[in-house]
Amino acid sequence: MSDFAPAPASADIGVYGLGVMGANLARNLARHGHSVAVFNRTLARTERLISRHGSEGDFVPSARLEDFVASLRRPRVAIIMVQAGAGTEAAINQLRELLEPGDIIVDAGNTFYKDTQRREASLREQGIHFVGTGVSGGEEGALEGPAIMPGGTAESYERLGPMLESISAQVDGEPCCTHVGPDGAGHFVKMVHNGIEYADMQLIAEAYALLRDVAGLSVAEIAEVFGSWRHGELESYLIDVTAEVLARVDPATGEPFVDVVLDAAGQKGTGAWTTQTALELGVAVPAIAEATFARAVSSSTALRAAVRAADLDPGTTAVAVEDRDAFVESVRLALYGSKIAAYAQGFDEIATASADNGWEIDLGAMARIWRDGCIIRARFLDDIMTAYAQDPSLVSLLTAPALSAALQSALPAWREVVATAARSGVAAPAFASSLAYVDQLRAPRLPAALIQGQRDFFGSHTYHRVDDPEGVYHVLWAQAGRPEEKWD
Amino acid sequence: MSDFAPAPASADIGVYGLGVMGANLARNLARHGHSVAVFNRTLARTERLISRHGSEGDFVPSARLEDFVASLRRPRVAIIMVQAGAGTEAAINQLRELLEPGDIIVDAGNTFYKDTQRREASLREQGIHFVGTGVSGGEEGALEGPAIMPGGTAESYERLGPMLESISAQVDGEPCCTHVGPDGAGHFVKMVHNGIEYADMQLIAEAYALLRDVAGLSVAEIAEVFGSWRHGELESYLIDVTAEVLARVDPATGEPFVDVVLDAAGQKGTGAWTTQTALELGVAVPAIAEATFARAVSSSTALRAAVRAADLDPGTTAVAVEDRDAFVESVRLALYGSKIAAYAQGFDEIATASADNGWEIDLGAMARIWRDGCIIRARFLDDIMTAYAQDPSLVSLLTAPALSAALQSALPAWREVVATAARSGVAAPAFASSLAYVDQLRAPRLPAALIQGQRDFFGSHTYHRVDDPEGVYHVLWAQAGRPEEKWD
Repeated sequence: MSDFAPAPASADIGVYGLGVMGANLARNLARHGHSVAVFNRTLARTERLISRHGSEGDFVPSARLEDFVASLRRPRVAIIMVQAGAGTEAAINQLRELLEPGDIIVDAGNTFYKDTQRREASLREQGIHFVGTGVSGGEEGALEGPAIMPGGTAESYERLGPMLESISAQVDGEPCCTHVGPDGAGHFVKMVHNGIEYADMQLIAEAYALLRDVAGLSVAEIAEVFGSWRHGELESYLIDVTAEVLARVDPATGEPFVDVVLDAAGQKGTGAWTTQTALELGVAVPAIAEATFARAVSSSTALRAAVRAADLDPGTTAVAVEDRDAFVESVRLALYGSKIAAYAQGFDEIATASADNGWEIDLGAMARIWRDGCIIRARFLDDIMTAYAQDPSLVSLLTAPALSAALQSALPAWREVVATAARSGVAAPAFASSLAYVDQLRAPRLPAALIQGQRDFFGSHTYHRVDDPEGVYHVLWAQAGRPEEKWD
Repeated sequence: MSDFAPAPASADIGVYGLGVMGANLARNLARHGHSVAVFNRTLARTERLISRHGSEGDFVPSARLEDFVASLRRPRVAIIMVQAGAGTEAAINQLRELLEPGDIIVDAGNTFYKDTQRREASLREQGIHFVGTGVSGGEEGALEGPAIMPGGTAESYERLGPMLESISAQVDGEPCCTHVGPDGAGHFVKMVHNGIEYADMQLIAEAYALLRDVAGLSVAEIAEVFGSWRHGELESYLIDVTAEVLARVDPATGEPFVDVVLDAAGQKGTGAWTTQTALELGVAVPAIAEATFARAVSSSTALRAAVRAADLDPGTTAVAVEDRDAFVESVRLALYGSKIAAYAQGFDEIATASADNGWEIDLGAMARIWRDGCIIRARFLDDIMTAYAQDPSLVSLLTAPALSAALQSALPAWREVVATAARSGVAAPAFASSLAYVDQLRAPRLPAALIQGQRDFFGSHTYHRVDDPEGVYHVLWAQAGRPEEKWD
């Protein structure tokens, strides 16, 4: 149907790409009183949106991209919500032909931030603002109020920000949306958000495995445990989701739902990006890495089958859990401590990238806008917000007063849980790795000194001395007597 | 001095770049009877090589690149040994102007394999063979016999291979050099070699930390322990190096050398590359990742200072080591088990990349050429060589008969050591992570099923069922009764 008549330049904002996410964003905008131009490459989706939801607000549909652009008021704002990668690239290239200096293109997909930086620089030459924005909350969030993390110029935010803030989730009247920083900052922060999400989910999965395989709780009992954790320090959307998933019974078999699901976790790449980028930045994010690797291991079908067929004697120690309530509480503390460590890693990655790129990201504001709408929304984010409010130059979340107190409470139980996992053969890589992260950071001396000695021995890589941290030294290892040389 | 007269096209091979590595490679070639053309951008280095070592063999020095190229017999072979990155790129571009179809350019630096693939494809258009080769063994190895891992065409190896095999380390008359595979295969394998080296060094460092900080051994005693490990399953160059480094006393202070070295480990990026590439390939290499992160943590000065200043109550349990010999033996077993896991991860990464790129890398041959010359040379590599000889399609080193038997012997002690590390607060991230890797792979069920349930709940990511692993399912979580849908 081409009976979408060309409209005058009146729409406040446009959405290009009307899959579930795009359609829901458009509906959310329309419901909040914005006039929304909509366009989709396949006309049927546009028609379906209008026929089903056209009455929810002021939609301006177009069958042709030229009409879509013409229907936007100046400076034009067009949100692209198509498949990341080639689809987004193509949409940007089509739009840039039709837009004018001062107009704004928004990429709301999960794009790697370096691609966003490249596109922003290219469109800037043409005078067009390019905004890469994170949108978290899934399909439901897009409709009901997501967390939104826009990058790009401050000027673009003046035009775009109020609309995004109106449709985002709200906490105590504050929108879960703020201007993150220039160029790729928004997509960077969304990437790390997802990396933290990977870690959080893996930590929950490890808690579940320990409760089930060490303490012998039934799935229904574990669902109740997670249900009870909804009301404490761990209060969060992911704990809610976990309780729901574990409470579900498979109608076909009568078994717990979690037992009929194939145990091979999928991934769409943001956990890997977060880890790869941290490695490039020189930031340690072991909890995120272990979570990403755990998904890879779970879906390595041939590898798992081969190792299971080898039937290794596990050499485990049967761990007797005599006081189940005490063990449940220890696992809760281990989960909370690990969670603090994982978030500290993610925030360190954001802080480092912000400094390297000159983004000046307000870390407290990131915690603030994650408090609702997004997948990692949690009561815990209030503590992080407070931590940065009390000390904007905080070097690590581990040292914020509220969180270091929580860590102190958690550490004894956390240690026992990691020890129990190792002895019983129930893998808890993210629990163990997060604990080791804390223990490395609090160690007065690390065995890295030995590594420096090895590197100097075999590769003449030199070392610094504790009594001369700036000087460069090398031992002539191969020579008798092996004197030390100071290099300039 | 420009009294290097232009020479006829007689040299067997040329070396461009006469830093310590390049000069030593050239000397090694000359000592083995090859006529070696030499060139350096700064003439003084060429002069120094000739004046100091000209008598060691047949060197053909040139002051100008044109003369260097003219002094090579056809098809010409020129090894570039300059700073990786811009230096290598510039040298390739200069040489390609002067070379002809059929000639061979060799990059012997630590270049990222994708750069090698790109350059190989570009030079191939010009009919020039481009060989990225790994060279391991440091400065001493370059002179006395390194392990050499050349990629590139089989045709180039016919001309180049015999020369490289003549100068490489030899084990039982077999050279530690073989044609790894096409294009970037050689640099890929060298990258993973270095990643494994990171893991091996970190594991040794953790063993040292546990012996010192848990069992209370003195540095001298630990040097003796490593000295004793030289003669068992752990027999390796890195164990030798460790014993040497720990045995050294700082002449200035009389303290153990390791105690005067600043505990901030440097890195040149190959550990990060190995981890980043594994994430791209979907291969789990947690031991290599933890080793890389541990170096990053050690050199995060501000982060460490902040956490130490916070003076966290570690919540540790004092672990009494009553039988020190037994603890030493447990640490040895934990080190050996972790080492098997780390090497299994590295070989999995090579196997996966080989399959993805069509490289057809002979994994057993990689173990063979690493047995001498390189940093990770070890008796253990004989077992890996045997494992692939017995079963060329081996899916994981963990399941090779000799190695799975070793794992079984190691696991009980390894578990106790990881538990002890967690309880005592001495970080052992690579020990713990390697154990969790094994435990994940041998688990009949992983909590990844819960993660799939969570992903389906919040993101409609769908899941497979254990009773229908190919079918795609989704629960309509938001609806009362929550039926399951099968998708096509």
